[in-house]
Amino acid sequence: MPALKPTDYKGRIAWLGVNVDRKDTLCSVPVPEMELTLAGCAGESHAGLTRPSCSRVVGLYPRGTEVRNTRQLSIMSAEELARIAAKMGIEAVDPAWLGLSMVVEGIPDFTLIPPSSRLQVGDGATLTVDMENRPCVLPGPVINRHFPDKGKLFKPAAKNLRGVTAWVERAGLLRVGDRIILHIPDQPVWPHLARARRQ
Amino acid sequence: MPALKPTDYKGRIAWLGVNVDRKDTLCSVPVPEMELTLAGCAGESHAGLTRPSCSRVVGLYPRGTEVRNTRQLSIMSAEELARIAAKMGIEAVDPAWLGLSMVVEGIPDFTLIPPSSRLQVGDGATLTVDMENRPCVLPGPVINRHFPDKGKLFKPAAKNLRGVTAWVERAGLLRVGDRIILHIPDQPVWPHLARARRQ
Repeated sequence: MPALKPTDYKGRIAWLGVNVDRKDTLCSVPVPEMELTLAGCAGESHAGLTRPSCSRVVGLYPRGTEVRNTRQLSIMSAEELARIAAKMGIEAVDPAWLGLSMVVEGIPDFTLIPPSSRLQVGDGATLTVDMENRPCVLPGPVINRHFPDKGKLFKPAAKNLRGVTAWVERAGLLRVGDRIILHIPDQPVWPHLARARRQ
Repeated sequence: MPALKPTDYKGRIAWLGVNVDRKDTLCSVPVPEMELTLAGCAGESHAGLTRPSCSRVVGLYPRGTEVRNTRQLSIMSAEELARIAAKMGIEAVDPAWLGLSMVVEGIPDFTLIPPSSRLQVGDGATLTVDMENRPCVLPGPVINRHFPDKGKLFKPAAKNLRGVTAWVERAGLLRVGDRIILHIPDQPVWPHLARARRQ
């Protein structure tokens, strides 16, 4: 029996976006709703039941290995976007610049919600969180176009604030404004975690 | 960028088993090797890219909802099987009685390894851990056939020792004796975890 537990941590969808061609631009285009299948968002550049592994997981796989796709969606929180902007000294970071799929609001310290948590949306569509998404330098150029010379500040400012990657466990429709309930794995922390992270 | 980190926690495959028809019996049949596709182990009763949701996840889904299958494999550790047997006052718990797919040895407190950890096996086959698998009463009757009246002791003895459920991230071959490397999500524990678990 899985140890999933619904929590009182509830949020709502503040923004949705799709990235149609990530070779062309990292940026997403805002949309009011998003239809999800088990392969992700049709037409989105990260969709697919599987994906060729990328440089991010070379510790596990030679580049291009077919693996199950755990990076269908990229999700951040409105509160953490605001914290990043404040640390960078700019008014706001537009989620479209970061190629995001979704911005949630109302769930504290969103980036660190437990791996394998479920985010269940209003009509039943459910996303499984893979884990924290680590910031990279790629959004730098687009940030520079809006705030000259600020792009290089993004990566350090976004440490532990860059949200999570996730995949579709149950298909359904997402709409801006929909309620989200966080379900977490209800299990003790592995006693060796701190040591393993130091290795 | 995902926060997966290889660790020095290494183990080996001590046992492999398949359950061909779980309606007929919970028990698995030991096998020397197991070919995995992204749908799991072909012919195994838990295989499939998707599954109809069961009573275990009624907190998320009406029973029978099509969801992505995170329960392709059920894995325990030899050390925790021995601890369960000791708590029950019997010589050993045969992994076949529990319908297991795999027994690993060498990874301490195996049941509690972090959700979304990866277990990478010798030739590259890789399993993603969903989370702790909670014990139930179903193995009771088969245990009773070998150790009369001991079956009811299994569920309490197996608390936090029942291993994990997992699914195939990368296809490949598992063989008894293969080395396993544990990769963990390298991220801080969510600050609200203890409160959310108490809710």
